[in-house]
Amino acid sequence: MYTVFAGGVGASRFLQGLCQAVEPASVTVISNTGDDVEPFGLHVSPDTDIVIYALADAVNPETGWGLKGDTFAVVDALQRYGYERWFNLGDRDLATAIHRARLLREGVALHEAVAGIARAWGLACTVLPMSNEPVRTMIATGDGELAFQEYMVRLRTEADVHAIRFAGIEEARPAPGVLDAIRGAEAVILAPSNPFVSIGPILAVPGVRQALAETRAARVAISPIIAGQVVKGPAAKMLASLGYEVSAPGVARLYAGLVDLFVLDDQDRELAPVIEQLGMRALVTNTMMTSMERKKELAEEIVRAIGERR
Amino acid sequence: MYTVFAGGVGASRFLQGLCQAVEPASVTVISNTGDDVEPFGLHVSPDTDIVIYALADAVNPETGWGLKGDTFAVVDALQRYGYERWFNLGDRDLATAIHRARLLREGVALHEAVAGIARAWGLACTVLPMSNEPVRTMIATGDGELAFQEYMVRLRTEADVHAIRFAGIEEARPAPGVLDAIRGAEAVILAPSNPFVSIGPILAVPGVRQALAETRAARVAISPIIAGQVVKGPAAKMLASLGYEVSAPGVARLYAGLVDLFVLDDQDRELAPVIEQLGMRALVTNTMMTSMERKKELAEEIVRAIGERR
Repeated sequence: MYTVFAGGVGASRFLQGLCQAVEPASVTVISNTGDDVEPFGLHVSPDTDIVIYALADAVNPETGWGLKGDTFAVVDALQRYGYERWFNLGDRDLATAIHRARLLREGVALHEAVAGIARAWGLACTVLPMSNEPVRTMIATGDGELAFQEYMVRLRTEADVHAIRFAGIEEARPAPGVLDAIRGAEAVILAPSNPFVSIGPILAVPGVRQALAETRAARVAISPIIAGQVVKGPAAKMLASLGYEVSAPGVARLYAGLVDLFVLDDQDRELAPVIEQLGMRALVTNTMMTSMERKKELAEEIVRAIGERR
Repeated sequence: MYTVFAGGVGASRFLQGLCQAVEPASVTVISNTGDDVEPFGLHVSPDTDIVIYALADAVNPETGWGLKGDTFAVVDALQRYGYERWFNLGDRDLATAIHRARLLREGVALHEAVAGIARAWGLACTVLPMSNEPVRTMIATGDGELAFQEYMVRLRTEADVHAIRFAGIEEARPAPGVLDAIRGAEAVILAPSNPFVSIGPILAVPGVRQALAETRAARVAISPIIAGQVVKGPAAKMLASLGYEVSAPGVARLYAGLVDLFVLDDQDRELAPVIEQLGMRALVTNTMMTSMERKKELAEEIVRAIGERR
C-alpha cells in the first residue's frame, strides 16, 4: 500500500506515474484541502479535483488543472451579477463544485463526497481529503492576509509572502482513513508539491505528523525544486521570501525527521551529500515528469528504492 | 401604474407588449413562484426568470423560456454524478440559479434577490415574487402527487390532473410591495397564463384575493384559451381533466367576482355574451401574440379599454 500526500499539479503528475507503476487499488491519496474555496456558494477543492481529473485522464494538459476542453459560460454569465471573473472555473468543473456543495449542505462528510466523485470518474485508487473540517490556508502579505486562492489566482502569486497560517487547523481532525493510511502503508510519499501550502497543511492536521513519525512505512519525499527552480507554482518564491534556501536541501530541511528517502533531480546530483547529512537517503534521478513514460519510470524507481530498504 | 399577475411564457409575451405600450417604470409584475424548484441545490424560479429574460430581450424565442443561444455543459456534466437530465437548465440560466441560491442561503429575501436580478438585466419595471415564503404547486395525478416541474418537464404534462395543491400557502405572506401594487394600481391585469398553476398560486397567497376584491383598480384578465385551445402549456388539459369547460368562459368563471374586463380572442367573438353574463365587460380582439407589433397592439387596446372605464 502506497500513501501519497498530495497537492495539485505536481502531485497529480506523480500519481499518474505511480498508478501505472503499481496497482492503483494499492494507492491512497491524502489530499490538501487548505486551498478549498466556496465561490458563488459552491464548493471547489482545487487540489483534490486536479488529482481526480488527472488520474481519470481528463485534466487539461495545458494548465494542469481543470478539465480538457471545458467551456466557461457560467463564470462569464455570473459577471452580470457582479461576481469577479478571476476564479476561472470551467462549466464541467463547476458541475463537480455544484455536486459537492449540495452533498456537504445535506450533511454528507467531505471524505464521502470525495469518494463518490472519485468513483464517478472511475478511479480505482482511494482519494481522501486530509480533513472533513474546513482548514483554510491564509497568506500574510505586505498588503494584509489573503485566502490562498486569492493570492494564487487573483494576485498570480505576485505578493511577497511573509507568513502562512492554516485557519481552522486546531479544530481539524484527520478524515476517517487518513491515520490508518499512514500507519498501515508500505510507503508514505510526500509528492513533489509545495512544502508550505500543499504538504504543509496535511502535516499540520493534528495527529498526522505524529502518525508519520511513528509509522513503520518507508517515508519518501520528492523535491519540487529542481536546479533552484520550481516546475509549477509559487514554491520557489515562498522558500525565498520566507528565508529558506531555494534548493532541494531547502525543502529537505523542512522534512527532516519525517522522511527517510529524499528524491532529487539529476541536475542537483552534487547536493546529494547535503541531503544525506540531514539523515535521509538520497535518490538522484530524472524527476522532470515531461511524459507519461517519465512519470511511470520515476514512480518505478521510487518503488524499487522503497523495496531495497526492506 | 399597471400591476400584472404573471406566469411564464404567455405572461412574458404580454408584458413585452405592455412595456412598449406604456412606460416600463409604471409596470409591476407579480410573479408566480409555485413552480420554483431547487435542482442540484440551486434555486430556479422559472416563471420569474422567463419574464425577466423576455423583458431583457434575451429569452430563447423558440422555447419561450431559457436564454437565447444558451449551452448545456453543466447539466450534461452533472449526469456523471447521477443526476437526471430532465431538468434542462442552460449554463447561463444556471448562473442566475447559482446567484439566487447563494443570496437566499445568505439570508437575502427572495424579493430582494429578484429585484437585483431584474436590475442586472436592465429592467425598468418592477418584478415582485408573489411571496418570499416557499409555495410549491403540487399536482395530484393517477400515479400520485408530483411537484409541478416534474409534471411539466419530466412527464411533459402527460399525466391526468386530479387536483392541484399549493404546499406552504397557509404560511405564505405576500412579498413586500405585492398588496400595495394591487391596491394602488390603475389596473390589475391577470396575464394570459394558466389559471390553475400560474395565476392560481398568486390568488391563493393569503391577502391577495381580498386586496384584488377591494382595490379600486380596473381588474382585467386575458384568456389563455383561444378557440378551445391553449397557445402554450397544459391549461386546456387541466381545464378538461378538472371538469371545466375548455373555453374562454371556462376561464372567466374561475375569475368571476375578481375581474371587471375579460379579454378574449376574435375567434371566440360569439362567446362575449356568456362573459357578460358573468358580470364582466368583454373585450374582443386579436389576442394571438405572434409578433412584437401584435403584442404592443394588444396591450394598447387593453390600456385604452381600461381608460374608457374611467
